[in-house]
Amino acid sequence: MILTVTLNAALDVTYRVDALIPHATHRVAEVSERAGGKGLNVARVLHGLGEPVRATGLLGGDTGARVRRLLGEAGLDEAFVPIGDETRRTVAVVDGDATGFWEPGPVVTPDEWDAFRVRYAGLVGDATVVVLSGSLPRGLPADAYATLIAAARRAGVRTVLDTSGAPLSAALPARPDVVKPNLHELEELVGAPAGRGLVHLAGQARALGAGAVVASAGADGLVGVTGDGAWQVRPPERVAGNPTGAGDASVAALARGLRDDSPWPELLTDAVALSAAAVAAPVAGTVDPATAERFRTSVTVTEITEELPAC
Amino acid sequence: MILTVTLNAALDVTYRVDALIPHATHRVAEVSERAGGKGLNVARVLHGLGEPVRATGLLGGDTGARVRRLLGEAGLDEAFVPIGDETRRTVAVVDGDATGFWEPGPVVTPDEWDAFRVRYAGLVGDATVVVLSGSLPRGLPADAYATLIAAARRAGVRTVLDTSGAPLSAALPARPDVVKPNLHELEELVGAPAGRGLVHLAGQARALGAGAVVASAGADGLVGVTGDGAWQVRPPERVAGNPTGAGDASVAALARGLRDDSPWPELLTDAVALSAAAVAAPVAGTVDPATAERFRTSVTVTEITEELPAC
Repeated sequence: MILTVTLNAALDVTYRVDALIPHATHRVAEVSERAGGKGLNVARVLHGLGEPVRATGLLGGDTGARVRRLLGEAGLDEAFVPIGDETRRTVAVVDGDATGFWEPGPVVTPDEWDAFRVRYAGLVGDATVVVLSGSLPRGLPADAYATLIAAARRAGVRTVLDTSGAPLSAALPARPDVVKPNLHELEELVGAPAGRGLVHLAGQARALGAGAVVASAGADGLVGVTGDGAWQVRPPERVAGNPTGAGDASVAALARGLRDDSPWPELLTDAVALSAAAVAAPVAGTVDPATAERFRTSVTVTEITEELPAC
Repeated sequence: MILTVTLNAALDVTYRVDALIPHATHRVAEVSERAGGKGLNVARVLHGLGEPVRATGLLGGDTGARVRRLLGEAGLDEAFVPIGDETRRTVAVVDGDATGFWEPGPVVTPDEWDAFRVRYAGLVGDATVVVLSGSLPRGLPADAYATLIAAARRAGVRTVLDTSGAPLSAALPARPDVVKPNLHELEELVGAPAGRGLVHLAGQARALGAGAVVASAGADGLVGVTGDGAWQVRPPERVAGNPTGAGDASVAALARGLRDDSPWPELLTDAVALSAAAVAAPVAGTVDPATAERFRTSVTVTEITEELPAC
């Protein structure tokens, strides 16, 4: 079972309007809602692919209750821990392109964090891989992910970490098995000037504690730098569509590949295929298995023997 | 006791951002929420002034539960009837000026409308005045307000109606005691070309069934055309501030004045004073009694003996 952790879950609300006009009033033509936060997006992709997955994290207030109800309707196995403050909403106003409004989210108390860690310790025992995704809500220590990774490691459970900034840098000493930054996040992490290559930066991130670094190279796919070698994996074509949630689909593939002990080239291929399928999907962040299979057969994998230019 | 009816209640959400930039993502600096819909705004003003008031209408889903909770926190006496569909949200993004997004709102079933009318018939017995405000949710007949006005009339209870379009024109044959349109709504109601005076249009609305017409003349205050005479009532000064909710504050004054059998000049003066106090208030739609009292002493009332020019 793969366990996903979403400490800063959200209710994602999408409003479709004809055209967004600042300082006007808009009648929303269509409202849609779903449970959000990167960890929940990963869980939804895995669930959609038929993979056993359980989602945990923190939920509070009326918005948290709504997220829990939506998870139930989607048939997702969830073990969220309640908090007193309100789970955040994100509102995306779509008029062709999207305009986003992100609420600041809850403040978590030390007692709530303690309660989560106790629950998490129990859940980790049932898991083979833990996925830790997204930002930390206010009130949590910057090394919150380090604590959770260390607990997983003690239980012999592998970890995939997808975050940035202080939560990422504070987590590396706990040695997550895979981290998934993009170029900008890597530069920030290692304090390098712009223009350094991805492979060089990923190597530095490994020196800081990451077992493997799978870095997004945007439309050029992924670069994986591991203890077993480095690869660039490219999608077969420039995929048209909505890139929202494509990163979470690739994290879902990484978690599945770790669980199955897949060789890195195969695992990275799956990550690029699922990401491309998510971009091509009519509903952002979903993956059609047949589309993923089609992309999987045409992804190109190149072993890297010298430094790549910065993307 | 004044009974307010809000058939299309809302959760009003306000997001404060630095600047709204289409197709960018905004971190919301501050979120505030309150129970909304014009009838609830009227109830809140009356409650803030210490007037006995009860709020009824329709609420459904998680958003309806949230509205009910907010009403409880505000200490408002409520007797809303549950529906199966979700109460709407309105989102106002404020960066100095406001950009609004209005969800389409619930669809009400015939059974739910029947259940509401039964509940309403019981509530009307405790009321001296009923205020009916705002749009009708989908699923209700256009003559929904006519039905509710007729029931109040049978119980000897007076009515104030603040709506527009088909629900207004369908309600007039039921003879509401006061209607409160603006110039545009009056033109639409009587089918007159632009340029006709407010007093002329208000007289036509009275001929269609309205007992009195209190028409908003914008910054020029109100024009009241009644069976006892016609008056123009002007605020003492051009009040700077937020006009949101000012109309609902004047409806609150009309309801209170009807209840107290106040003479029209006094009643209209109170309506303009409360409206001006609402504009001046730091929180939109609230009224500070001391500010209202100050405006009340300086409002000017002019009896109208000839046709006013259109405002």
